[in-house]
Amino acid sequence: MRPSNRAPDQLREVEIIRHYTKHAEGSVLVKFGDTHVLCTASVEDKVPPFLRGRNQGWTTAEYGMLPRSTGSRMDREAARGKQSGRTQEIQRLIGRSLRAVIDLGKLGERTIHLDCDVIQADGGTRTASITGAYVALHDAVGFMLANDMIQESPLRDAVAAISVGVYQGTPVLDLDYIEDSACDTDMNVVMTGSGGFVEIQGTAEGEPFQRAAMNRMLELAESGIRTLLLKQKEALGL
Amino acid sequence: MRPSNRAPDQLREVEIIRHYTKHAEGSVLVKFGDTHVLCTASVEDKVPPFLRGRNQGWTTAEYGMLPRSTGSRMDREAARGKQSGRTQEIQRLIGRSLRAVIDLGKLGERTIHLDCDVIQADGGTRTASITGAYVALHDAVGFMLANDMIQESPLRDAVAAISVGVYQGTPVLDLDYIEDSACDTDMNVVMTGSGGFVEIQGTAEGEPFQRAAMNRMLELAESGIRTLLLKQKEALGL
Amino acid sequence: MRPSNRAPDQLREVEIIRHYTKHAEGSVLVKFGDTHVLCTASVEDKVPPFLRGRNQGWTTAEYGMLPRSTGSRMDREAARGKQSGRTQEIQRLIGRSLRAVIDLGKLGERTIHLDCDVIQADGGTRTASITGAYVALHDAVGFMLANDMIQESPLRDAVAAISVGVYQGTPVLDLDYIEDSACDTDMNVVMTGSGGFVEIQGTAEGEPFQRAAMNRMLELAESGIRTLLLKQKEALGL
Amino acid sequence: MRPSNRAPDQLREVEIIRHYTKHAEGSVLVKFGDTHVLCTASVEDKVPPFLRGRNQGWTTAEYGMLPRSTGSRMDREAARGKQSGRTQEIQRLIGRSLRAVIDLGKLGERTIHLDCDVIQADGGTRTASITGAYVALHDAVGFMLANDMIQESPLRDAVAAISVGVYQGTPVLDLDYIEDSACDTDMNVVMTGSGGFVEIQGTAEGEPFQRAAMNRMLELAESGIRTLLLKQKEALGL
Amino acid sequence: MRPSNRAPDQLREVEIIRHYTKHAEGSVLVKFGDTHVLCTASVEDKVPPFLRGRNQGWTTAEYGMLPRSTGSRMDREAARGKQSGRTQEIQRLIGRSLRAVIDLGKLGERTIHLDCDVIQADGGTRTASITGAYVALHDAVGFMLANDMIQESPLRDAVAAISVGVYQGTPVLDLDYIEDSACDTDMNVVMTGSGGFVEIQGTAEGEPFQRAAMNRMLELAESGIRTLLLKQKEALGL
Amino acid sequence: MRPSNRAPDQLREVEIIRHYTKHAEGSVLVKFGDTHVLCTASVEDKVPPFLRGRNQGWTTAEYGMLPRSTGSRMDREAARGKQSGRTQEIQRLIGRSLRAVIDLGKLGERTIHLDCDVIQADGGTRTASITGAYVALHDAVGFMLANDMIQESPLRDAVAAISVGVYQGTPVLDLDYIEDSACDTDMNVVMTGSGGFVEIQGTAEGEPFQRAAMNRMLELAESGIRTLLLKQKEALGL
Repeated sequence: MRPSNRAPDQLREVEIIRHYTKHAEGSVLVKFGDTHVLCTASVEDKVPPFLRGRNQGWTTAEYGMLPRSTGSRMDREAARGKQSGRTQEIQRLIGRSLRAVIDLGKLGERTIHLDCDVIQADGGTRTASITGAYVALHDAVGFMLANDMIQESPLRDAVAAISVGVYQGTPVLDLDYIEDSACDTDMNVVMTGSGGFVEIQGTAEGEPFQRAAMNRMLELAESGIRTLLLKQKEALGL
Repeated sequence: MRPSNRAPDQLREVEIIRHYTKHAEGSVLVKFGDTHVLCTASVEDKVPPFLRGRNQGWTTAEYGMLPRSTGSRMDREAARGKQSGRTQEIQRLIGRSLRAVIDLGKLGERTIHLDCDVIQADGGTRTASITGAYVALHDAVGFMLANDMIQESPLRDAVAAISVGVYQGTPVLDLDYIEDSACDTDMNVVMTGSGGFVEIQGTAEGEPFQRAAMNRMLELAESGIRTLLLKQKEALGL
Repeated sequence: MRPSNRAPDQLREVEIIRHYTKHAEGSVLVKFGDTHVLCTASVEDKVPPFLRGRNQGWTTAEYGMLPRSTGSRMDREAARGKQSGRTQEIQRLIGRSLRAVIDLGKLGERTIHLDCDVIQADGGTRTASITGAYVALHDAVGFMLANDMIQESPLRDAVAAISVGVYQGTPVLDLDYIEDSACDTDMNVVMTGSGGFVEIQGTAEGEPFQRAAMNRMLELAESGIRTLLLKQKEALGL
Repeated sequence: MRPSNRAPDQLREVEIIRHYTKHAEGSVLVKFGDTHVLCTASVEDKVPPFLRGRNQGWTTAEYGMLPRSTGSRMDREAARGKQSGRTQEIQRLIGRSLRAVIDLGKLGERTIHLDCDVIQADGGTRTASITGAYVALHDAVGFMLANDMIQESPLRDAVAAISVGVYQGTPVLDLDYIEDSACDTDMNVVMTGSGGFVEIQGTAEGEPFQRAAMNRMLELAESGIRTLLLKQKEALGL
Repeated sequence: MRPSNRAPDQLREVEIIRHYTKHAEGSVLVKFGDTHVLCTASVEDKVPPFLRGRNQGWTTAEYGMLPRSTGSRMDREAARGKQSGRTQEIQRLIGRSLRAVIDLGKLGERTIHLDCDVIQADGGTRTASITGAYVALHDAVGFMLANDMIQESPLRDAVAAISVGVYQGTPVLDLDYIEDSACDTDMNVVMTGSGGFVEIQGTAEGEPFQRAAMNRMLELAESGIRTLLLKQKEALGL
Repeated sequence: MRPSNRAPDQLREVEIIRHYTKHAEGSVLVKFGDTHVLCTASVEDKVPPFLRGRNQGWTTAEYGMLPRSTGSRMDREAARGKQSGRTQEIQRLIGRSLRAVIDLGKLGERTIHLDCDVIQADGGTRTASITGAYVALHDAVGFMLANDMIQESPLRDAVAAISVGVYQGTPVLDLDYIEDSACDTDMNVVMTGSGGFVEIQGTAEGEPFQRAAMNRMLELAESGIRTLLLKQKEALGL
């Protein structure tokens, strides 16, 4: 039995709220149960130095947690003067996931910055971030089309992500914090709308895992991501 | 005429929402119009090195803006590796303002951290932060009393803050971003529930200001802060 | 009675020594009693990135304390790898104060750097810095005129600063270190030669202060600054 | 056809040289073809603060590349003043992989530091690091046993790692730099001697990948890691 | 002919002013011509971690230049966030030179910090720093004796330093900035009162130098240092 | 008697291995006994900002020690976020030494980076670095000539370095770690092929040294460097 009484293949309640703040070209509050992440997409009219003059754009992500988004207060990374390894790992993952579905050549010399800031954390912040950031990115693309900055959408596909794991011997979908702290294996899976894998990151925190568990986890992830892709469409009115 | 059509002595709509996130001992979303700040209060069972063994507590504040809380995206301070001078100035101001109303000797060897994170900015983030942080602090004190960590409230008074300025020649209350960018003088005023000044910080961005304007601004501030103190009481059910 | 036996409205002995070091375009040692600050003005033929191509100049300030300018040795900020929040607050205040009296449009694409380094501290280092930096700035402007870098002085007015406070219940002018450490309220006031306020920063370290004390402090400050403006004129031979 | 003319399931030549430098308790130069990594294991008689007094040890890893280990010179991380996100990601991966096979409770209050420094890079530095670091760790454990620091080996299993990918449509084993730069999918797999997965990190650089490709890559990885585990045993004389 | 018209073996005018600032236990302004350095000695009742519990003291030095002590303004190291390699080299040299003449075992668990801050630079700041710092150290020792912190002087000898070089083919003593910028060889020599060498650091900026030039430079240095040692004695009233 | 049983004027066994790694334009492993340093020379088609547009090149050096190159593990400088003062001192010394024998005007607008990374340390790492870096530089120059990047060698002379010291009262050549830790005086000497001094850095760790010891040390150094210059020639096949 899961602490939340969910079935092994049951997602937490998912909510995707667009236009959450007023300044960003895309602004989405995504909730996976008690995990709440604000994802904004900002369009900037320049590219990083390594892309200048190449007639293409860039998409990148940054991630942060508010100091008391967690059970006990974490140090503020801005005050400590550097981002942790975990933060960098996550923001690199978010950036790669979104670049997998955008044609950078169709952006012009522009950067879209995705900022994923965790307001409240209860496990799964990186997968919620990817799922919400895609919607924010979609809104930013809509803004660019509406303002004639581009004539054609650079989005090739949708992308969403979910965690799976082995909790007390059973593969389960969408781990919350209690499960995440106690599970043997934790895997984050990122997939596109057309069903291909973009990223798979599985870690055995306790016992190493076998192929059978791996296969079951991937099935759970595929099913969960299908649901998330529908939620994204619904939120976007597509 | 103010861009927002407000009267010179009119505050923006103020909203104070308690229990906004679930982990912190105090968690308040404060809105001054379109300025939204999440203020959390976290109780920690230790004090900074300079206070160890002195049988007293500490109260301190940190401030941050989400990168796209503003009209154009700001660099993330955690990524740049340092907090700006402005950020440090503001968090020092918030910390001093709250220490003015708390008896640190009654906290035991504990620190209360106030984190003020701007979700959306439209001018006046530092005064909204102080006003909201007091309510979060009150809730954290309530938590400590309820859990027998302390027997008596260390709070001596309430505290709230508002900005005033001279906009197109007229002293006005509670500047929003448009006014703030264009005003000649900008002054932040912090007062206690019993009507004393804790902080006054006035800056002439354009023309230096005279005693008469100063006096009128202080009157506007006193009146605005009286209203804010009532809003705090109402939110706290006092 | 003040520890220094001064009357409540009495400044410490003020001395302004020009041409104190040989390299800088303006170099002034300013003494407010035992507080000694070396203020240099350096003219540089470029502006910061945010002003490039705008056909205007910039004026900015940096502040530092020698490690043993104080009663007990402070860590060297260069060795710690960052400037404290206090340092940044002060150098931002000095910069704003001087920009209030200079027409940046008349500087050409040049920056004037004001460096205020405290050789010996006894309270009031930021107000001494502003008062001395104005004289160094005046000398740097004189240098630019003499060398045909500009044809017209960009200085619109003079500027000086003093601290006031409430010490043992009495408003007093120009606090020294002993008074500063023990006072209830500490206020720094910056005014122009024509009598307008540029900055007012008042903080209640102990008891909040009332309007009456505030008014008395502002009168003391105005009177003190009038004297400082005369000292500046005298030093400049105007 | 692979650029190196290897068969799809063929490893590069693997060499594991023990006692490569004289000071470390374990010192191994591992070569996967032209990728050469020096892995040292250092035993230290203390644990990080979060483990003090818990009567257990710690094992952690750091990773670095010599500036000209690569085709074009990279900036030295010590000179830039920070480790890149990639470096942190890799050293966290190495650390987790080795902690998966060591019983920290049997180390006493000691830390084993694994330093993996890339002397020459040609793809696969992180998997070579894990494979070599295990041997260095084994030697450090041997040193501790021989010196009566511990009475029983804390090693529960062996661990090794290899990369797999999809290169020009074909799943291949052990990518070198040319393949890595051009492949669609790149996956790093870490397994124990008893055949369980410790880490799987797969990234689609180009086209998303399907389950079939994933399964084939895992088979290749399992076979390659079996060979590496034999090479480790051979090097250790087991 | 030297630009200053000095003879090859002629020092600049040397002045050593004690008690230059009021807080430090030793405070000396040393002038070698237009090079002016403020050297303070601060006594602190603790030692760095690596010496704790060893019943001995420590003596260390820090060095800084005011931003406009030089012909063109240098960046402030505190603002850049790190000390340059040159700064570190110099402060390490000053520290070693003074530790050569002090018996750390006689200090108790105390540190004497020597801060050498260049007010005005015209070549030779490191040698002026060492020469002045010795006098400040002597005063700090006098303070400790007078306050019964120690019963016996830990000073074993005096120490002073001077630069020598080859300027336009001729070995000369005590290079000023013009000579320093143009010389072929620059050597800094540190000697004790009893005539032993503590440090010799010679660098050929242009042509390599030969033994004969080296010998002549050392003779010049010995003679110059003898004079400096007399100036120190005179200043100290010995 | 020296701990290594060497005669006072006897070098350790010296080995110079070219083409040690495959990517760098020059790559040399130099061994002075158990001190092993990898020196690479990398040619880059740009110069630092202060030389742009001056039609000349630059040569610079960086130095690092692998964390366990030493008897007890040192912190990794990349992880600590800064290079130590010692590291900076050494890399500045290496850079100056090589610039002494290269005509930067003949390089074109190119930089040659010399990276000296200590694989195993046993005293004398800086002198081994200089000696090996010269050979790597020679190979990089050969590469540039062979690739028609330059038509004429910019090398004016060879350069090599050795340490000398006073160990238990006797001047000795080429100190190893045991001698270095216990010696009274340690001196590093850098000389050119034509016998001129480029750098002399002598430090009395214990007793100050006299002219006679100095002269004897310089003789030992000259003799040792003559041997090193021959080893370099031999390695280069000249």
